[in-house]
Amino acid sequence: MVRKFTFGRPFPTDAVVKTYPAQEGTLPYFTNTEESLVLTLEKGAPVYGLGEQVRGINKRGWIYTSNCTDNPHHTETTRSLYGAHNFLIIGGASPFGIFIDYPGTLTFDIGYTRSDTLRITPEDWNLDIYLIETEDHLPASIVHTFRQMIGRSYIPPKWAFGYGQSRWGYKDEADFREVAETYAENGFPLDAIYMDIDYMERYKDFTVSRERFPDFPGLVNDLKEQGVHLVPIIDAGVKIEEGYPVYEEGVEKGYFCKEEDGTPFVGAVWPGKAHFPDMLNPEARRWFGLHYKYLLDQGIEGFWNDMNEPAIFYSEKRLNKVFDEVAELKGQNLDLEKNDRFLGLVNTLANHPEDYRSFYHEPGNGMERVRHDKVHNLYGYNMTRAAGEAFEELEPDKRILMFSRASYIGMHRYGGIWQGDNMAWWSHLLMNIKMMPSLNMCGFLYTGADLGGFGGDTTEDLVLRWLQFGIFTPLMRNHSAMGTREQELYRFSNMESAKKILELRYCLLPYLYSEYMKAALHDEMLFRPLAFDYPQDTQAVQVEDQLLLGESLMLAPVYQPNAEGRYVYLPEDMLLITTTGPEDIRLKLMTAGHHYVPVAENELIFFLRKGHLLPLAAPAKNTAAVDDTRLQVIAWPGTEASYTLYSDDGVSKDYENPENLSDIQLSSDGRITYTGALERNLTLWN
Amino acid sequence: MVRKFTFGRPFPTDAVVKTYPAQEGTLPYFTNTEESLVLTLEKGAPVYGLGEQVRGINKRGWIYTSNCTDNPHHTETTRSLYGAHNFLIIGGASPFGIFIDYPGTLTFDIGYTRSDTLRITPEDWNLDIYLIETEDHLPASIVHTFRQMIGRSYIPPKWAFGYGQSRWGYKDEADFREVAETYAENGFPLDAIYMDIDYMERYKDFTVSRERFPDFPGLVNDLKEQGVHLVPIIDAGVKIEEGYPVYEEGVEKGYFCKEEDGTPFVGAVWPGKAHFPDMLNPEARRWFGLHYKYLLDQGIEGFWNDMNEPAIFYSEKRLNKVFDEVAELKGQNLDLEKNDRFLGLVNTLANHPEDYRSFYHEPGNGMERVRHDKVHNLYGYNMTRAAGEAFEELEPDKRILMFSRASYIGMHRYGGIWQGDNMAWWSHLLMNIKMMPSLNMCGFLYTGADLGGFGGDTTEDLVLRWLQFGIFTPLMRNHSAMGTREQELYRFSNMESAKKILELRYCLLPYLYSEYMKAALHDEMLFRPLAFDYPQDTQAVQVEDQLLLGESLMLAPVYQPNAEGRYVYLPEDMLLITTTGPEDIRLKLMTAGHHYVPVAENELIFFLRKGHLLPLAAPAKNTAAVDDTRLQVIAWPGTEASYTLYSDDGVSKDYENPENLSDIQLSSDGRITYTGALERNLTLWN
Repeated sequence: MVRKFTFGRPFPTDAVVKTYPAQEGTLPYFTNTEESLVLTLEKGAPVYGLGEQVRGINKRGWIYTSNCTDNPHHTETTRSLYGAHNFLIIGGASPFGIFIDYPGTLTFDIGYTRSDTLRITPEDWNLDIYLIETEDHLPASIVHTFRQMIGRSYIPPKWAFGYGQSRWGYKDEADFREVAETYAENGFPLDAIYMDIDYMERYKDFTVSRERFPDFPGLVNDLKEQGVHLVPIIDAGVKIEEGYPVYEEGVEKGYFCKEEDGTPFVGAVWPGKAHFPDMLNPEARRWFGLHYKYLLDQGIEGFWNDMNEPAIFYSEKRLNKVFDEVAELKGQNLDLEKNDRFLGLVNTLANHPEDYRSFYHEPGNGMERVRHDKVHNLYGYNMTRAAGEAFEELEPDKRILMFSRASYIGMHRYGGIWQGDNMAWWSHLLMNIKMMPSLNMCGFLYTGADLGGFGGDTTEDLVLRWLQFGIFTPLMRNHSAMGTREQELYRFSNMESAKKILELRYCLLPYLYSEYMKAALHDEMLFRPLAFDYPQDTQAVQVEDQLLLGESLMLAPVYQPNAEGRYVYLPEDMLLITTTGPEDIRLKLMTAGHHYVPVAENELIFFLRKGHLLPLAAPAKNTAAVDDTRLQVIAWPGTEASYTLYSDDGVSKDYENPENLSDIQLSSDGRITYTGALERNLTLWN
Repeated sequence: MVRKFTFGRPFPTDAVVKTYPAQEGTLPYFTNTEESLVLTLEKGAPVYGLGEQVRGINKRGWIYTSNCTDNPHHTETTRSLYGAHNFLIIGGASPFGIFIDYPGTLTFDIGYTRSDTLRITPEDWNLDIYLIETEDHLPASIVHTFRQMIGRSYIPPKWAFGYGQSRWGYKDEADFREVAETYAENGFPLDAIYMDIDYMERYKDFTVSRERFPDFPGLVNDLKEQGVHLVPIIDAGVKIEEGYPVYEEGVEKGYFCKEEDGTPFVGAVWPGKAHFPDMLNPEARRWFGLHYKYLLDQGIEGFWNDMNEPAIFYSEKRLNKVFDEVAELKGQNLDLEKNDRFLGLVNTLANHPEDYRSFYHEPGNGMERVRHDKVHNLYGYNMTRAAGEAFEELEPDKRILMFSRASYIGMHRYGGIWQGDNMAWWSHLLMNIKMMPSLNMCGFLYTGADLGGFGGDTTEDLVLRWLQFGIFTPLMRNHSAMGTREQELYRFSNMESAKKILELRYCLLPYLYSEYMKAALHDEMLFRPLAFDYPQDTQAVQVEDQLLLGESLMLAPVYQPNAEGRYVYLPEDMLLITTTGPEDIRLKLMTAGHHYVPVAENELIFFLRKGHLLPLAAPAKNTAAVDDTRLQVIAWPGTEASYTLYSDDGVSKDYENPENLSDIQLSSDGRITYTGALERNLTLWN
C-alpha cells in the first residue's frame, strides 16, 4: 500500500510515475514538529536506503544530507555526495518505507544526535511524502512496491556490461588507440574506452578537438571494429565564447539559468566562465538534449554526464569579492583568525550555497520561476533526462549508454550513475560494495564505482581485489585522475592474474545480463543485503560485506590489503566457488554458519545458493563475442534446480518478447533440460 | 647482533645510545643502487615497523615517506604523518631488522611499485644503517635488540595513566572548572584536563592569559585537590612581539633558526608571524627547555608539545609572493589551469618544502650550520628533548608528563606521542589499534589516539567503542577540535554505559601500569601483533585487528558501527572476558581457532591467556584513589599461573627498587600465594 501526504505546494519532480491521491489527516508513525519529522527507532533496528551515501548498508548512526555536491572527499563524516535519494526503509517489528519527494536540501539524522531517534528535516515544507507499507513488512517487497511507483530502471545496451577503461588525461587519438592496442596485444577483453574532458575543444560541450582528433568518426569506427566503444563525457556548463553555437543559441533563446535580473548566471567550470542550461525548462531541455546528435552522428553510442550537481568552481560575482577581500589582507599579520579567513575565502569559492541561491529556473507549464536552491537536486536528473528524451526522439529503437554523476530518484529511468570521484582506498572498495544494494533500492541498477580508485595512487593488489568485485557490477570501469599513478590493467606485475579475473566477467555475462534484465523488468533489486533474502536470520542483518547478486549468487569480496582470506557468514548451506579464472574453478560444499575462507591474492570466492544454477559462457574478447548458446552450468551436486535465462540482441528495446526467455532445468540425477526459442548447448560443469 | 654501516657524513641524531663500530664492506641483503637500497621481498612475507604511519601492522603494499608533517588527512594514500620512525622488520624465512638513522626525507616503497620489491631511498647518502639480526630471527627479539640500542622508553607519572579530557576551545577558568565539575557530578573518574592553545595570551608560549585565568596557580591547585591535573600545550613557534621576553631573548641571543643571511627566519603559526627556536643548538635547546619552569612553578606537572614538525602556515616571503601572483589573476578568465594555479598558490602556503629549504640550524660542537630540510625530522624530537633535559635539571627526581606531536626515534626517551590530529572515523579507531604495536617497536610506549576523533563530528557509538579500546592505551585522552560536536562523555545518551567502561580502566590500572613499567624497563613491547607471540602460526600473521597487551591479555576491539559482535582468531585456547563494567564481568573458555563472538554496544571483550593472571582493583575516581593492595585476580579455572606486579609511588624515579616487584602465584586448586614487600589482599575472582 502506498499513501501519499502532501505538504504545501510541492515542486513537480516527476520522480513518481503512478498517480496517488493525497491522503487526508496526519502522517502516521512520525511526530510532526514544526521543523522535522521525528520517530523513535527500535533498539538494534536497521535503517536502509539513501542510495548514494557513505557508510553502511544499515544507515543508522550518522546524519546525511540530500544536497547533490561535487565532493571528492567520500569519508565517514561526509554528509552529501552527488545524488539525492530520499528513500528509507525503517526497520523494526514492522518495517515500512518512506519516500520524501523534495528537491531541496533535506537532512536525515538517523540516530546521530541520539542513537534512538530518526529526524528528517527539509528546508521548507513544500513536499510529498509517500509511505510504503506491505502486508509482509519485508524490505524486499517494500522496495518492489517503491520501484513500481517510480517506474522502470534504465536499461543500457549489452556492450555496456563489458569492461571499460578510462582516465582523465587521455588527450588525443594516439592515446585512445594505444590503450585499445595495448589491451588487445596483452590479450585482455575490452568493450569501451571513456573520453574525459580533454577530447573537447577548450572544454566546450558537443565539440571534438579537430587538432587532436583530425578524423573523429574514423577513430570511432576503427575502434568499434575492434569491439571497443568510445564513450565521451558531457559537462553541464556551457562555455561563454563568442562564435560557439551552443553558447550563442542558448543566450539568444534564453535557455540558460538566470540571475534575478534576468541576465544569464555566470559560473565557472573547466573552461572558466560558463552558463548553465535551464534543464528544468522543457524547451531548453529538449534543445540541450538534441545536441547529443552531434556525437551520435559520428558513431558514438554512449555518454557520461558530469559536473551536473551542478558543480561551480566559482561564480563571477563571488570571485571578484574574494579577490578584493584577499587584497585587503595583504601586509597584515595573518594570525589564526585572519589566516583562517584568508583560506576560507578561497576554499569556499566552489559550490557556494550563496551562488545556488542566486539564480533561477523557468520550469514552464504555467509555473513561476523557481530559485535554484529550491530545486537543486533535480539539475543532474534533468540533464540526463534531456539526453534520454532526445535519444528517444532521435533513436527510438536503440539503447544508448548513459550514466551521470548527479542524480535524483526519477533519473534512474534515463540512465545509471557511477559512484563519483572516489579514491584509491581499500575502504572505497568496501564502500562500493555497500553502495550497490542501497542504489538498487532507489532504482539505480546500472552502477559501479571507479575501479582501482579515481583519486590518489593505486596499488596493484587494490586493483586486483577491486577487479574481483568489479566483474560483478553492471558498470565496470577502471578510471583514474590526471596526476595519479596509471592503472590500466597492463601496467602491473600481476597483469596475468588480472586478465584471468577479467575473463570471468565475460563468462558470467549470460548470468549477469539475465539478472540485470529481470531485475529491471520486474522492478527488483539486483544486489541485495543478506537480510533481505533471509529476514528471519538475526545474524544476516549484521553482514555488511557480503551481497546477494541475482537469484543464484552470494558475493563475499576481499577488501583488505595483504589478506589471504576472510570471514564469511552463510545463512544456509552454500556451494563455495573459488577461482583464479575460467580455467581454474573449484567447488566446495559448505554448511550454514560462520567460516574463515582462504582466498589467495589472485583468487576470488563467491557462493552458489541451493536450488539455483549458474550458467557460464566461454571467455571472449568482448561482449559481442560472448557465445551464450554454449553454456556450462554450475550446480549443486545431486539437487534439482532451475534457471531462467534472458537474452536478446542487446541493442533494441523488444524487452517483452517471450523469445527472450528460456528455461534451464536440472534434475537430481544431473540431467539438463532446456526450453527456449534459441538453440543452446548446455553441459553440466564438472 | 647489530651491524652499523656508515655512508657519507651522517648528522649526529643521538637516536642510538650504544656505540657500534662502522662495518667495513658492503651492506648485506640489499642491492645498493646509486639512488636506493633494493631488496626482493618473499611472497607473503610481512614487513613491520615505521611507527606512526597509516595502513596496517603489516606495512607491505604502500609507499611511505619519513617527513614529519602536520597533515590532518590520515587517509590510506597519505605518505607522511607527524613522526619519522625509520625502523623496519623484514619478514620471510629469516626476518631481520633495519634502522636507517637519517634525519632528512626518506622513502620506503614497500611493494608499492612492484609487490615483490622493497626500495628505500634517502635524499642524499649521509646516513647510518643498522642491521639488527638475532639468532632466533624472531620479530620480538629483533625489537628487543633494537630497543636496547636506542635506550629506555620514557616513563610518565602514574596519574598520566588516568583518563584525560581535552578540547580545542576550552578558553577560560570557568570552562575548565565546568568540565571537572560535570565529570565529577556525573560520577566519572578523571585525572587530567588538557589545555589547548586558547589558555595562552595571544598564543605566546610560556604565558597564561591573565584576563581569562586571573589566578592560574589557584586553578591548578583547586583542580589538583579534586585529583585533576591541568596539562598545557606548548607550541614550537615563538610569537614575534615587542616586549615579549621569550621573543626578545631569543633574538638577542641568536637562538632562533636563521635565514641564509643570518636574520631570523619568519614563519607563521597560531599567533601569525613567529620565529622558531633552534632546537638543534644545545644552548638554544637548554634556553627553551628552562622556560617550562614558568608553568612548573605554577603547579603544572605535565605538557604536550605541538606544531613541532615544525608546522608553518606560511613564510613571510612566500605569502607576499602569493599575494602578488593572486592579484595578477584578478580579472582573468580562470579556466581549469588558471583556477588550479590560483587554488594551488593558496593551498600550498602551509608546510612548503621551499620554506624548509630556506633556513638553517647551528648545531654547535664545532659543526657547521645545517639547512633545515636536511635535519627536518629532528625538530620535534629536539623540542621534546629540550623539555626533557630541562625537567631533568629542574626536577631531577620527579616524573613530568610529556608527549609530543612530531617525533623521531630517540625522542622516545624524553616523551610519548599522541597519534596526531585524527578524525571521528571508525577507520581511525582501527588505525589507532594498528598503530600501537608499530609505535612500540620504535620505542614509543606512552601513546594513544584522540579518543572519539579530533576532527569531524563524532557519534555516541563511536565514542563508546573507542572508549572500549582506549581504556587499554597508556595515553587515554578524549580530544576534539573547535567547531566539531562536543564529545565529553557526559554529552551522550549512552553516558551510563561509558561510565562503566571507563571505570574498568581504573580497575585495570594495576595490570596496565605493571605491564607498562616492565615493558619500559626491559625494552619490550607492551602492544604486540599476534604473529610476534605465535611466530609459527601462519594465521596469526593475517590478524590486523587483535593485539596482545602485556603478558596476560589479548584484545579484540569492535571497530564497526552497528556491529553486535565480531570475528576473533584465537591462536590457542583462551578465556573470553565479556564486560559492561566492573559489576558485570562474564568468563567463558574458548578453544583455539576462528569464532564469531557477540559483543553488544555497551560491552567489550578481551581474552586472558592460559597460564596468566589478571589482577583487578576496585573502581576509583582517579589514579591516586586506585587501591592496588586489594585486588581480585581473574584466572583460568584449574590451572597454575603466576604474575609479577610492579608498583611504585608513580612519581619518583626509583624504578629499579626490588620492592617495586611482587609475585602472585595461583595453584591449580585455586589458592593464591603472594610474595612482596607491600601487604596485599588478593582474592580469586568468581
